[in-house]
Amino acid sequence: MAREAHDPPARAATDHRSQPRRRGDALTAAIFQATLDELAEHGYAKLTMERVAERARASKASLYRRWPTRIELAMDAVYHALPDPTAPPDTGTLRGDVLASLRASADALAGPAGEAMRGLLSDVLRDQATTTQVRQHSQGTGRMVMGEIARRAAERGEIDPGVVTPRRLETGQALLRTYFLFNDVPIPDEIIVEIVDEVVLPLFGADPAASSA
Amino acid sequence: MAREAHDPPARAATDHRSQPRRRGDALTAAIFQATLDELAEHGYAKLTMERVAERARASKASLYRRWPTRIELAMDAVYHALPDPTAPPDTGTLRGDVLASLRASADALAGPAGEAMRGLLSDVLRDQATTTQVRQHSQGTGRMVMGEIARRAAERGEIDPGVVTPRRLETGQALLRTYFLFNDVPIPDEIIVEIVDEVVLPLFGADPAASSA
Repeated sequence: MAREAHDPPARAATDHRSQPRRRGDALTAAIFQATLDELAEHGYAKLTMERVAERARASKASLYRRWPTRIELAMDAVYHALPDPTAPPDTGTLRGDVLASLRASADALAGPAGEAMRGLLSDVLRDQATTTQVRQHSQGTGRMVMGEIARRAAERGEIDPGVVTPRRLETGQALLRTYFLFNDVPIPDEIIVEIVDEVVLPLFGADPAASSA
Repeated sequence: MAREAHDPPARAATDHRSQPRRRGDALTAAIFQATLDELAEHGYAKLTMERVAERARASKASLYRRWPTRIELAMDAVYHALPDPTAPPDTGTLRGDVLASLRASADALAGPAGEAMRGLLSDVLRDQATTTQVRQHSQGTGRMVMGEIARRAAERGEIDPGVVTPRRLETGQALLRTYFLFNDVPIPDEIIVEIVDEVVLPLFGADPAASSA
């Protein structure tokens, strides 16, 4: 109590401007968390830079510097909560990698990121311009993960690189997301196993039994 | 003019109650069209039985008799505008049937039914209870069409019936709908051809080159 009395008034805990400045990752993490919380509680339609800034105890200017529009902020926050597309699982087999990758996506969709994504999708479906932005943002990530997984499988000689096409790379995630959109979470593991063994592996000419042994 | 003057006043064109009663298909078609128009203009959130009844020049009672809730009416109207799942195309080859079926869906999605479906999905994504209803309504149709197409292909000896699974039956439509949700319409035909030749036919062990010859 005595200590507080000696602090300058600007350091009161309720005024974020007086706290030690968070930079880089810590600030970004706080902003993403605040965005997900706002999305889950109030939906994309009511998302404002002001509310996120307040909740994250950050300045509006620091938000606008990195995300000129709220759709960019919302998408960044949601995709940041999904598995990192630049570091796909590396289990040593194609089947292991695809299973791990889809399970990680399914886990993320069952949490706050899934709730936020449902709300975000719901709002953007109405507006073709933002839909296009969401697509450009999201389309790459699924293919990036599967592309790297397939590249390693070809390197190990598990698959023929000639069978890899963009349409095939996106099929597993498309089935997972379609299931997510129309069903309750969590996504049952047997659905993920079906997607992998009945669809993804056969598309790459891989035998499910071979790598599960 | 003289004839009109002799008609009873109740037959004035502006009062639908006085017009000859439409029954069965004609009435249903008018109600579905009015529902699609309302969905396209105002979205599902603002859809009311009253507005649809007025627009279709039908009684509210006639609507409630068949569709106890507006979600049931909206879904029926949208799915009625999509290709009839009980009459899949019959071109004589698996490739021809799958292409024709996906092209028919793509055509429908590029029209008012697609606009209505986007709006409907947007609104129901927010509400898990209606999402479940939409799923139950829609899940069956894609599989029904592909199931019949696959059954005939197996009968002709084009595919082994053992390769047919529910997850594989829904893959083509899942890819088409995912594309539709995130992109402008119309869906380019080369996307449909890729879905068929790179994904659907290989999943059923069919050679695209064989039946396109």
